[in-house]
This record gives sequence, C-alpha cells and structure tokens, in this order.
Amino acid sequence: MRVRWSPLQSGAREEKVLSYVEAALEAIEEKKRGGRLPEGLIRTVVEGYTAGEIPDYQMSALLMAIFIRGMDYGETLALTRAMAESGERYSFPECVDKHSTGGIGDKISLTSLPVVAACGAPVAKLSGRGLGYTGGTVDKLEAIPGFTCALDRERFERQVREIGLAIVEAGELAPADRAIYALRDATGTVDSLPLIGSSIVSKKAATGAGHLLYDVKCGSGAFMHTLEEARGLADLLVRLSTSLGIRAAALITEMDQPLGSAIGNSLEVREALRFLRGERVAGDLDALAREIAVRLLQLKGVEEPERQVEEAISSGAAYEKFREFVRAQSGDDRALEHLEVSDEITEVCAPAGGYLRRAEAIKLGRAALALGAGREKKGDEVDPAVGLEVCAKVGDRVEAGQTLALIYGARNLRRAAELAEDAFEIAPEPVEPIPAILGSVWEAAGREGER
Amino acid sequence: MRVRWSPLQSGAREEKVLSYVEAALEAIEEKKRGGRLPEGLIRTVVEGYTAGEIPDYQMSALLMAIFIRGMDYGETLALTRAMAESGERYSFPECVDKHSTGGIGDKISLTSLPVVAACGAPVAKLSGRGLGYTGGTVDKLEAIPGFTCALDRERFERQVREIGLAIVEAGELAPADRAIYALRDATGTVDSLPLIGSSIVSKKAATGAGHLLYDVKCGSGAFMHTLEEARGLADLLVRLSTSLGIRAAALITEMDQPLGSAIGNSLEVREALRFLRGERVAGDLDALAREIAVRLLQLKGVEEPERQVEEAISSGAAYEKFREFVRAQSGDDRALEHLEVSDEITEVCAPAGGYLRRAEAIKLGRAALALGAGREKKGDEVDPAVGLEVCAKVGDRVEAGQTLALIYGARNLRRAAELAEDAFEIAPEPVEPIPAILGSVWEAAGREGER
Repeated sequence: MRVRWSPLQSGAREEKVLSYVEAALEAIEEKKRGGRLPEGLIRTVVEGYTAGEIPDYQMSALLMAIFIRGMDYGETLALTRAMAESGERYSFPECVDKHSTGGIGDKISLTSLPVVAACGAPVAKLSGRGLGYTGGTVDKLEAIPGFTCALDRERFERQVREIGLAIVEAGELAPADRAIYALRDATGTVDSLPLIGSSIVSKKAATGAGHLLYDVKCGSGAFMHTLEEARGLADLLVRLSTSLGIRAAALITEMDQPLGSAIGNSLEVREALRFLRGERVAGDLDALAREIAVRLLQLKGVEEPERQVEEAISSGAAYEKFREFVRAQSGDDRALEHLEVSDEITEVCAPAGGYLRRAEAIKLGRAALALGAGREKKGDEVDPAVGLEVCAKVGDRVEAGQTLALIYGARNLRRAAELAEDAFEIAPEPVEPIPAILGSVWEAAGREGER
Repeated sequence: MRVRWSPLQSGAREEKVLSYVEAALEAIEEKKRGGRLPEGLIRTVVEGYTAGEIPDYQMSALLMAIFIRGMDYGETLALTRAMAESGERYSFPECVDKHSTGGIGDKISLTSLPVVAACGAPVAKLSGRGLGYTGGTVDKLEAIPGFTCALDRERFERQVREIGLAIVEAGELAPADRAIYALRDATGTVDSLPLIGSSIVSKKAATGAGHLLYDVKCGSGAFMHTLEEARGLADLLVRLSTSLGIRAAALITEMDQPLGSAIGNSLEVREALRFLRGERVAGDLDALAREIAVRLLQLKGVEEPERQVEEAISSGAAYEKFREFVRAQSGDDRALEHLEVSDEITEVCAPAGGYLRRAEAIKLGRAALALGAGREKKGDEVDPAVGLEVCAKVGDRVEAGQTLALIYGARNLRRAAELAEDAFEIAPEPVEPIPAILGSVWEAAGREGER
C-alpha cells in the first residue's frame, strides 16, 4: 500500500510539538504562583523535555519555580514515575539492592552485597562511575585486573540467576532524570528535596529491584548536613519507593569522617576484602556493612538475618561469593590477594597527643582527588592505586607523632598532604566517638526510631 | 615585535568566560533564597548574557527566581542601567518623548507629538513595529505613501534640530533588554513589575530624551488590569527615569474600550489628522492627546501649556508641523487628505436600544488583527487599509439598529464581525461613561492624585 504524504500529517506533527511547549508554559504558569501540577502535565513535560521538544530555558524556569515553590507528595511521585519510565527498564522483583547518597570511603556495595548474596538474597545492581573524590562502585571494581562492568542484558540477567550477584554499569536508565539533573546542576536547582528524591528513586525504580535499602549519608561530608534534612530525604525515598511497589527502608548514617579507613579504589577494595574474610576493619565500616546486610535480608523476609550475616562472613561464604562474582565478570580472583597500590607512601603524623576531634571527610576526599583517585570532570582517568588510609577515628586516643593517615601516590603530594593535615584536629580532652548509624526509616509504615 | 602564542592567553580567555557563568550561578544562588543582587553582579550577568557567554537556561532560571522573589529598587535600577548601556545610545537632553505601555487605537504619538513640536518642544522619537493587534507607530506612519522611518543617525539628528520632530525605527537599542525580553516571553516571566519597569526604562534611557511622559494603560485591554497595578508601574517608571537623570512623569489612562474611534493603521492616521486640524474626534482621544501634550510641555518648563496647546491646534500650526515632518521623512503630504482605506465596509449594528455598557478593546483589537491590521508573528505583512471604526463610547445612548462599528476590509470578515459583535454590550439602564485619565504621577516628587 502506498501512502501519499499529506499536509495533515505534517500538521498533526506540528500540533504535537506545540503541545509540549504549551504544556511547559502551563506548568510554569501554575508553579510560579505556587499551584499544583497535575500528573498528566508533569508526564507531558518530562516526555517533551526528554524528546528535546521543550527547550532547556523553559525547563530551567520550571525547575526554579519548583525549587522555590516546592512540590507536594503527589507531584513528586508523578515526576518520579515519569522519569523512571523515560528509558530502558529492568525487572528483578526477587532481587535486593542498596543505594547510597554518596560519601567518602563508602565501600558498602563491596561489603554488604556479597554477604546478602551468600545468604541467598539475589543482587542485581546497576551502578555508575560518576564524579567525585574517588570513583563509583564501577571504578572500584575495575581496580581488580580484568574485571568488567560492561555486561549485556542477557549476561547480566543470567549471572543474577546463576550466582545471585551481578553489578553492571548503568546505561540509559531514566534518561529524563539524567537530562534534568545536568540542567539542575547548571542552574542552581540541585538542593531541592522533591527534585533530589524523585531523581534518586526514578533511577532505582528503573533498575527494577524489588527490595531496596537507602543509605542516606548525613554530615559535613555528605549532601545532607543535618539529621533533619537527612530524615526528610530518607522518609521521601522510602515513601516514593513504596508507592512504586518496592519494599524499601532507609538508614541515616554518619558522614563527618570517612567510612572505614581506605579512600581510593584499590585501597577500598582491599579493605572490603578484609571485611569479607572476617578480618578486623574499622568499627564504623564493620557495623554499617553488617547492618545494611541485615536490613536487606529483613526486606526479603529472611529469618534470623543477624545470624545469617555472621555465618556468611565467618564461614568464608561471603568471600567465596565475591570471588565467584569477580570471576563471572572476567576478573582475576587470584589477583585479589595482592591488589596493586602505590608504593610511594607518605605518613601524616599527629603533631601532639590527645584525642581525635575531627577527621574531616571532605578534606580527606579532596586529598584523594588531588592524588588522582577520582574525577574532576567526565572522562577523566582514575588511578586505582592511589588514595589514603585513615588510621584513627574520632574519639580515638592518639600520641604525638602517631600515624593519622598514610598517603599512597605522588601526584600533587604537597597539596594532598596539606589537605590531610588540615582534616585532622586533636583535642586535649576526651572526645565522644560518633555513632555510625544515626537513625532509620523502616518501610513506609513509619520510623523505627533513633539509635 | 613577535609574540608567541602562549597557553596563558588561552587560559586568561577561559577565565573570563568562566567568570560570567560563575556570576550567573552566584546570582541564581543569591536570588533563589530571596537575597539581594549587588550592582556589579547584575552588570556582569547582563553583559555575559548579551555577549552569549551565559546560556539561556541559566538566565531563565535567574529570571524565574527574580519573578518569584522580586527585586528591590536598587536592584531594579542597576538592571535598568546595565540594559540601557548594553548597546547604541542617543542623547537628546533638550527633547521630549512619550511612551505608552500599549493599547488598542492608541494614536497619541501621532496627535500629541506634532502639537508639542509646534509649541517649540523638540521631539526625537525612536519607535518600533512590534507585535500586536495593529501596527506600532512606525507601521502607522508608513501608511502614508512614501513615508520612511529608516533615517540614519545623522539625518535623524539634523531633522530634530531643523524641524523639531523626527520619528525613526529603533535599531539596536538596549540589545540586552531585547534578548532578555524574548527569553521572558518564552519562560512565563513577563508579568513581573521590576522586570517590566527595567525593560521599558532601559529602552527609553537609551533613546536619550531628557523629558519623558509615560502613558500607563489600565484596564481589560491593557497589560495592567487594575488601577493599583498601573499605579505601581507608573511610580516605578518615573522613579527609575528620574534616577537616570530624565525629567519624567506618568499618566494612568483607561483601556477597557479602544482610545478614540479608529483601529488600524490608515484609519488611525486619518483620525489623528482630524485631531490635528482641530476637527471633532472622540472625547477620550481629544482629552488625552491634549493632556499628554500639556504634560510634556510642563516637563520642559513651558509657561501656560494649556493655552499653547490650544493655539497650536486652532491655528493650524500642529497640522502644519505634522505635514513638514511627513515631507522631511519622504512622505507625500498631499496624500494626507485622501489616505487609502478599504472600500469593503461592513456595519455592526446595535441589536437593541439602550446604553453602551461595554466596547471591549481586546475583542475589537482581535477583529482588527483578523482583518490584517497587525502582526501575529514577526515579519508578517500589515495591511494599512483595514481595521475598524468604533462609533459609540461606553455610556452613550444607542438606538436599535444604530451603527456601533464599521469594519474595513474582507479578510476573515466573518470572524472579525463576530468578534466586534461580541465586543459590545448594551444595557437597558443608563451607564456611567469611563474617564479617559485615571490618575497621574508627577515626577519622583510624588503623586498628583486621582482624577
């Protein structure tokens, strides 16, 4: 059958384009006066923006109006859903996953996930490289010789079925969120609770895990600086996820000082391996990695999760699961015993004795970045062998001259060392240790209370 | 001397570009939280945006933040000044000028300005075509055979010196305002008092007249719908102008019904000529054209301005000044007696007797637009011969079957006629006429009071 081109088709197309821009203007008019955006309008705007039919300058005006006027829960859910459905979607209803809002020295995916996989809760994780002081989970795993996160969908799904643990680099998940986030980053509209919440949950919803634990970092080294802000975000993440059919919970965890000791890709993998082998690691990392594993098992409805976690670690099952996972993703599991780290090591020592009052995560992160552990901009190379090991925790008694940190690497060493020195503060009087876990939100049912 | 290209130069250039974007982000951060923008920051952002270094999406986010959070007087003045200085500038400290915020049937430039020029107050006016239901002043004048508004700067200035009246098409005046206005129009940030005020005054300040009268239209056919809004804008326009060294005042005038009778370019010139020859025209046009002429002369410090205006009209001096002006701008002044209007004339009659309660400016303007009198988009052709003559004013007694309006032209006649019919409403009981002048602001000293 031959169809002749007719003006009507062209007209129909133009009408569609016009309606996206009209929708954008309608949304702007409504929101700038503090009104409420209906779900259909939000969906049309997200669709139009993702399709490139609504220009950046209209979207940024709308985002600023949302930033200042806010969005209620229904609007936030509608935005989350529209962004989640804007691209590729996975479905792993049996799987568990976790998401951290980002902190320094955070190796919870490398520690908790092999444990839960060893306990029989399958993990299908889509992760990113991202920007930051050190790499993302994908970068950390790539510090293992041969390891690849570039699995195709079929291999990814098969690996989840066969060994219960797979981590791949996220592709075109929630492209609407990706585009909107880039615009927010350039227009001063990042720090808005409904926009942050919908951004996080849209990506996680697209990855399709049925059980999800959020690790909301709180402190000077995190996006959320106060417990109140972190609580607000945790509540929103759990509520949005539950509305989208995901069993979800959240922990609010401390991020004034780095988590554990290591900062830097190989160093963090090495520290994670110590935990998985049941060796001694910093108390905050040990507590949090176990707690997150326990919570993930609880979300799956596993009985006696504390005992299961303990057994998976002490029996060596968690470590074996990790090695199996490394081999499945083409990594050299024999290399795990001797991961390469820089042999140019510089000590940062305590100038006086006393008690460690401060080990500032941000400054230690910046030191790692200066050494080459992270990316300042997209496409930068990451050096897996560099970073820092922080040897004392807030509250620890320290002697004059004692090692506070070891610097691995030589690039920008002076700057890194100055940043590290600046990060530490020693007080003459005893200092209270900071708890690793500050609070939790247990599903949408409500709060479990403070710890 | 040979200079080698060095990375430093390239670095320096990048730093400049970066600083514009940094300025934009700083302004966004400040304004989104309701803070105050310092003058230097406003200037840098305006400069960076006009230079194309700050992208639309950052500017529109800032404009939305300004829309919602507002700007104080100092910020508004800084924005006005920065936009005024963004392009070409003229200087006519001896001249008077007027600016209307835009209404249907507004032919005040064609009526008041020849009068004040005849009274010895020189007029140097830069005007536009713009969009709207009928053309701008430039379009109206071009309805006169041969007439051109495309004078070069030298000819413009000479004509002002020699005959005391010149009107040219505005070129690159305040390009920052032009760019920002286009963006506001596309992002729902037009209706903000500080943005409207700075936009208007920046353009007028760039035209350089030393004495300026603002005609702020108020009513359903105007941008400002309530007396309070119009009063706020009038106050701001006068205050900003005074701060920039311009003697300024404002009238607040009525725009529920069209001004005078004619809507459409040739029809409006014809009506203006009647006024200038001292012939009878609609009372509102007569009153307002005289009042604006009087106020302009007062701003110039002319003694007994009412008597001067009366004499200029009754002696024929105003009409002669207009003819001289037309000849100077290559127009055929003999053609003024028989300007061409469409001979396809349709009457709109009163369906019943009573009193005219409503002659809605917007609907009559839309009718003129449908006939081809104005532009729906930039570049549209304007037909000078079409339009409407409105034959009754609100409050007039009308008989059943009496002509309420004459439609000139045939394009979209049915739609134009329906719009015109819809525009009129006849009440059985007597209706109060609407006064032409609703209030005034006399320089920055304060208000003169309501009329």
